[in-house]
This record gives sequence, structure tokens and C-alpha cells, in this order.
Amino acid sequence: MADNVPAWWVSDAERTAVYRVIHTRRDIRSTFLSTPIPDDVLWRLLGAAAAAPSVGFMQPTEIIVLYDAATRRHIQQHFETANRAAAEVYTSDDRAAYEALKLAAILETPLNVIFVCDTTTVRGRGLGRQTMPETAVFSTVCAVQNFWLAARAENIGVGWVSILEPDAIKSVLKIPAHLTLVAYLCVGYVSDFPPQPELETKGWEGARALAEMVHLDTYGRPLPPPAHPLTPTSHNAYS
Amino acid sequence: MADNVPAWWVSDAERTAVYRVIHTRRDIRSTFLSTPIPDDVLWRLLGAAAAAPSVGFMQPTEIIVLYDAATRRHIQQHFETANRAAAEVYTSDDRAAYEALKLAAILETPLNVIFVCDTTTVRGRGLGRQTMPETAVFSTVCAVQNFWLAARAENIGVGWVSILEPDAIKSVLKIPAHLTLVAYLCVGYVSDFPPQPELETKGWEGARALAEMVHLDTYGRPLPPPAHPLTPTSHNAYS
Repeated sequence: MADNVPAWWVSDAERTAVYRVIHTRRDIRSTFLSTPIPDDVLWRLLGAAAAAPSVGFMQPTEIIVLYDAATRRHIQQHFETANRAAAEVYTSDDRAAYEALKLAAILETPLNVIFVCDTTTVRGRGLGRQTMPETAVFSTVCAVQNFWLAARAENIGVGWVSILEPDAIKSVLKIPAHLTLVAYLCVGYVSDFPPQPELETKGWEGARALAEMVHLDTYGRPLPPPAHPLTPTSHNAYS
Repeated sequence: MADNVPAWWVSDAERTAVYRVIHTRRDIRSTFLSTPIPDDVLWRLLGAAAAAPSVGFMQPTEIIVLYDAATRRHIQQHFETANRAAAEVYTSDDRAAYEALKLAAILETPLNVIFVCDTTTVRGRGLGRQTMPETAVFSTVCAVQNFWLAARAENIGVGWVSILEPDAIKSVLKIPAHLTLVAYLCVGYVSDFPPQPELETKGWEGARALAEMVHLDTYGRPLPPPAHPLTPTSHNAYS
């Protein structure tokens, strides 16, 4: 292969780097630093988001980069209200465990990044969306995941906050009513990427075994595991 | 930094590899080979999917690896029916353009991989889903994007087929009614990763400029572009 590698070929070293970033990515809440993110780094992250797949090449994603402190304090109040309401569904030990978790870093991070989907755009001419219209919003989720992995590759942490009322956030950020709020991210450099997900370390939820998630040909039929043990770059470090 | 780099630090070379894979990933329909995918490679892809973020660490994703030829011929028939119906909404030139596109590779690939979400699992104890329950399905989409990027890093192509009726596919694959079909992927080695998305090359849809997607602090307010031009690894090669 060595003498005859096409221009698009990804090398073993590059592949190992990609797996390392996939397996060491974390949902960060507790280890953020306030260090600013340089503009060129931010634009690289935004470029990675824009390079995500989209159904019919519709590229329905709009991204708001939020620095403004007053706006973020306003959103923090919305988060606190939603989080108090969320805590109320838990009882006794579960409630204490929930209240001990840190679930957002809206003010501690240097910026927040909000992903919105325009499901009404004529871009893509509707291709692929007649049977599964939800793929418009899924395209924006793919952009979020590209952003998240690019951030990990820049040694930047991301925490996704979903304990927010979408309509309230849309109102604060002046997002038109016909757009869909997909993701609210807190973004910043970190003091650590922990080896395990924080929700696992803190006992909120354990990791599933990989084989349990995989089915062969029809649902419920197990896929036999590989003959050789997985290599370090392929091990299943969930988060 | 050199003497004092933490274990989790991603190097410049690793970062460049991640951006290369993000920017050269494509939705593949036309360049698949029938070469089998070794089991250990397949399990690395599945491990990458399982390492995706999930709301409340619920890990709601179930993955069906589909080799069976008769099942795939059955699904191909469903695709052809859905695709004929989809073509009928277009008229004149648009219809000819639509019909000239290749939109699936269900039978030409060595395997198909189907992603399903169990939004009803008690895993994660509902954390993060009271205000945005759609984040359960979004977690499965993040798993799809991890799989897709890992595949690109293995020089394996992926094509996402959404021109399928989810209920029909669930019935064929014996997926329980309470689970949600998220993604149907055709997966295989390729003869080429084209430099541009096929839908762009074939004139179906053009690429958006990155700056047009990005807003500062509130929707509709532009973020000034970076002082320095983006580097090659950050350029905006959409797909």
C-alpha cells in the first residue's frame, strides 16, 4: 500500500488520533477555566460544525456564539428555575444525589454556543425528508457532535445543558419562532478531562457493556464478539 | 508546555488528524466496494458509537448490524417504493435531476448498520429530559456521527438513507414498537472519497458560507470573521 496510497487515505497514526479523541471526549461541568478562546480556534470549531453531514445537503444549522454576560446571567436564572423543577420529581436519596450534581457552567465558561435548526429552509429541496422529516434536526445534532470532537482535539471542554425551556431561551436570544433550539453548550478550556464520565464516577448511572447494545440482522439476536480482544484505541471508554 | 503536558493533552498532530477526518468525511453513495469489513474493525466502529455523549448517561442506543441478503433485498424494495413516491413531488427539470441521483447503496455494501433509540429506558433516571425529552434521540444521533467519523478514519464510507418508512423498517427488522428508528446506514470500503459532497458536484445544492451561519450574542447579529485566514485544517469543506 505504501507506494500507492490515494490522497484521501487516512494513516494508522491519524486513525489512532481520531479514536483517542472520540474515547476521551467528556461532558464537562466541573473543570472549566475562564481562559479566553482565541478567535482562530473558535472559527476552527465552527468550521468543523459546518462540515457535518446534512440531509439533502440542506445545512439547516444556525450557531449563536454568546459572550454577553448580562444575557448569560438571564439564562442562568432560567436554568436555576428549570433545575429546581427537575429536582422536585426525585425523592429522598435520588433527590439528594440529583442536587449534588453540577449540571451547567453557563457563567464560568468564557462563552456559550447555541445550535439552532431551520427546518423550514428550502435548501436541499426536501431531499430525504419526505419519509423522515426529523433528519433536518438530526443534521444539526451531527454539527454539534463535530463541534464537540473538534473542541476535544483543541483540548477544549464542552458541556451540553438541556435543563432549559427552549421557548424561554429562544426569547432571550431573539431566535425566530420557526427555528428549533437543538443544543445549548458551555465551552472552555479545562483543568482536566476525567478518565470516566462524571455521572458514572458520582454513581448516577453505570456504563453499558458494548456487546449488549449490538444486534445481528434482527433486533434481539446477539452479534458474536470479535475473535481478538479490542485494541487500546478501540476500547469502550463511554461518556 | 512540552515538559509538563498532562496525560489527556491532544497534540497538534492529533488535532490536525481529527480536522482532516471531519473535513474529508462524505455521504457516500457511488463509490462503494464489496470488500468485507473485518470483525475487529467493525467492533472499533461500534465502540466509537458507544462512546458518544448521552443525556444523563442514559446510553439509549441499540445498533443492528445487518448482513442478511434476503432482509436487505426486502428493505431495498421498501426504499424503491419510497423513492418513487418522493420523486413524484418534483416536476420537470427537478424531477429529472432527482431521478438521476443515487441515494442508497443497500445491496452494494457488505453491511448495513441501523441505529435505534429506546426513549423509554429508565437509564439516566430522566436527568436532562424533563425540559428537552428530544435529547434522548439526539444522543443516538451523536452515536451515529461518532460511528461515521470513526469509519472515515478507517477509510470506510457511510451513506445515510432516510428515504424509508420507519415503521416498515422496524417491522422487517423485528424492532419493538416502543423504539425509535434514528438512522439507516450503508457501510463499506470505497474506491474514492470525493473532495466535494456529491449533491454539490451534481448541482442539487450549493454550499453555504460559514460566516452566514454564525451569530454573535443574539440571532441575526454577525460575528466578525477572524483576523487571520483559516488554516488548511480548518477550511470549510462542507458535505
